Amino acid sequence: MKYSYLSHLYCPKCNKSYNSADKNQLCSCGSPLLVQYDLEELKKYWSPKDLIGRETNLWRYHELLPIRHEENVVSLGEGMTPLLPMQRLGKEMAIPKLLMKDEGIIPTGSFKARGAAVGVSKAKELGIQELAMPTNGNAGAAWALYAARAGIQSNIVMPIDAPKITRNECAISGSNLFLVDGLISDAGKIIAQAVKDYQLFDASTLKEPYRIEGKKTMGLEIAEQLNWKMPDVILYPTGGGVGIIGIYKALKELQELGWVQGELPRLVAVQAAGCAPIVKAWEQKKDVSEFWPDSTTIAFGINVPKALGDFLVLDAIYKTKGCAIAIEDPAILEEQRKIAAFEGAFICPEGASTFVAARRLRENGWIKEEDVVVALNTGSGLKYPDTVQVKVPVLEKGSFIKIPITNC
Amino acid sequence: MKYSYLSHLYCPKCNKSYNSADKNQLCSCGSPLLVQYDLEELKKYWSPKDLIGRETNLWRYHELLPIRHEENVVSLGEGMTPLLPMQRLGKEMAIPKLLMKDEGIIPTGSFKARGAAVGVSKAKELGIQELAMPTNGNAGAAWALYAARAGIQSNIVMPIDAPKITRNECAISGSNLFLVDGLISDAGKIIAQAVKDYQLFDASTLKEPYRIEGKKTMGLEIAEQLNWKMPDVILYPTGGGVGIIGIYKALKELQELGWVQGELPRLVAVQAAGCAPIVKAWEQKKDVSEFWPDSTTIAFGINVPKALGDFLVLDAIYKTKGCAIAIEDPAILEEQRKIAAFEGAFICPEGASTFVAARRLRENGWIKEEDVVVALNTGSGLKYPDTVQVKVPVLEKGSFIKIPITNC
Repeated sequence: MKYSYLSHLYCPKCNKSYNSADKNQLCSCGSPLLVQYDLEELKKYWSPKDLIGRETNLWRYHELLPIRHEENVVSLGEGMTPLLPMQRLGKEMAIPKLLMKDEGIIPTGSFKARGAAVGVSKAKELGIQELAMPTNGNAGAAWALYAARAGIQSNIVMPIDAPKITRNECAISGSNLFLVDGLISDAGKIIAQAVKDYQLFDASTLKEPYRIEGKKTMGLEIAEQLNWKMPDVILYPTGGGVGIIGIYKALKELQELGWVQGELPRLVAVQAAGCAPIVKAWEQKKDVSEFWPDSTTIAFGINVPKALGDFLVLDAIYKTKGCAIAIEDPAILEEQRKIAAFEGAFICPEGASTFVAARRLRENGWIKEEDVVVALNTGSGLKYPDTVQVKVPVLEKGSFIKIPITNC
Repeated sequence: MKYSYLSHLYCPKCNKSYNSADKNQLCSCGSPLLVQYDLEELKKYWSPKDLIGRETNLWRYHELLPIRHEENVVSLGEGMTPLLPMQRLGKEMAIPKLLMKDEGIIPTGSFKARGAAVGVSKAKELGIQELAMPTNGNAGAAWALYAARAGIQSNIVMPIDAPKITRNECAISGSNLFLVDGLISDAGKIIAQAVKDYQLFDASTLKEPYRIEGKKTMGLEIAEQLNWKMPDVILYPTGGGVGIIGIYKALKELQELGWVQGELPRLVAVQAAGCAPIVKAWEQKKDVSEFWPDSTTIAFGINVPKALGDFLVLDAIYKTKGCAIAIEDPAILEEQRKIAAFEGAFICPEGASTFVAARRLRENGWIKEEDVVVALNTGSGLKYPDTVQVKVPVLEKGSFIKIPITNC
């Protein structure tokens, strides 16, 4: 048994192959690269029962991850996040089998930890000592912290409007952090120049091939947590789209291994109404998206006007008979409140958007009552203090309080 | 096999017994009550191998928890938090076997989720529909959210200086939240009056007996994660002290079950120099602490001038040959930064204090080089944005960045 069954990298556009022992970025044709495993070989040795008793984080799937030697693993214990029944909310929206995959319960408080854990581990294995990336906040925070654990120097540029706590995370880790008075696309241009000027490793979304492999573990976990039965629908808040690409890749790999049977779940890309390039492309049945001008949404993590992997996201939607849907900010905030009040989960606006989407797709009949529906929450509400309006009475010492007598 | 081997409640001061089917608060003598299990019976049916393949949260230990019927469990997937090797930091402080139990990776971002999950579940089982409590922030946030999931109304009073994000958590859950211009002791007085005026269930620290049972699972997990070998030292940031009481109780129960052997780990109560009543009592070899006037520390969660369970904390320290130590705020902040820069973990100031304590106890020889040392981090740094000072350059779109060429 090998620790990893990594075979090579390949281009999903032009099919060119690359050696995984090299420091690869994009394909020469400009497309992101994907990781191929030797699944035929792995199939002979590996079955679901081998997972029993393994550590309860994403490294339990190490055979299907790209790190060849265990000593290169850089871990903060990420993964195996809860798959929670949402009974009261599900009842209200007539989806009794509504589940939330809660990626708020993970180091750095967002699903970006998965991509960072696997991406940084592979960077360490490849001998990379310094990296650079633009970010909308959470990815930069995750990469900065994992890079610190690996002893790798990070250089990060984020929009000035990104969640402020992510600045703290980068700064305290020792990252070289810069803010830009613009969007992530503006941050991306600055990083691209720095990568060129200083010959840095470019850890931008999909410009290195291993972040997808980390994100993919969300799909592996959902399948394992449902005892290798696939759900009917998975809703995913889509900015760069790495998660939906990763989940799709994971489920196809599990199919090839023979661990899951039947149709893949219908994958739903949920975007903000103020930044919905994938939704527009899907509505027009196109294979790629167009740059979305003047994008804006309170769900900052999905404010991505043009994703490098848009064609892979759209392919995953088309192949699984999924769809794409855009949600307005006020509906997102109202759903965020409901999720806390009904289910006790304080989640991020990006995550809340997937529940609005579920609600609407149930209303129009696209989701059926009997469907097993997984809504993916990508992060903790703790990272977004400004989305909750709080008015609280302030008392002097020795005051009395008047409580509305409700139930007692 | 029963779901729980709960037997009854008893008073650790006057030994009086109470029926666990009733809504109990303090003993008539004023002491907190503790939960007793039928360990002799449980021992016949339960062994470590029964845990294999169970869900990876604290409910894997349901036999040793006080909920009689599984349908009353209110869970957000809490528990089985990472026990992380801290190799680089450990090397620097000459404790090669330094581990961190990371309670930041849990719903609501702090270890208070454990007490809330078990406490609220038991409140639901007892038919309680409304509860009240004072809080330094994190406990209130956790109880408000778990109560929301259970359909229980919460009433919470917190100091105006408590971490602001915890207000959001309470407010969004639908709690009746009040701030007080004072300390948690002032909040406690207001709650005590409201409990009397409105006949509410009092969920204040140790005034209900089940929060300890939730906190106890930290001890169960540490033992299981070390394969039922006990560490030599556990350092715990001590405010109300429920965690140290719970960990001590857990390890004694595991001893009685025969799951662990040998000496208990030396338990260390770590306090802030600006609020160190337990340390003072320990130094004077006393059994109870005195109210600490004008207490102040940036580690807000351990700003508790007089803990109701102080005698239980001191007993746990004396019985395990532990100690108590106070740390100044500047040293806490410097350690917090080091932990992020060396280990990639952004933890709360309370948690950081335990690492300063480990460092000092190693320097004075109380901790030996070969000791297995567990430092308990009680929460995520995400909840304390103001403890990190960030100065970041702001760029215009199209700018260039100058990176100090370090490693590349």
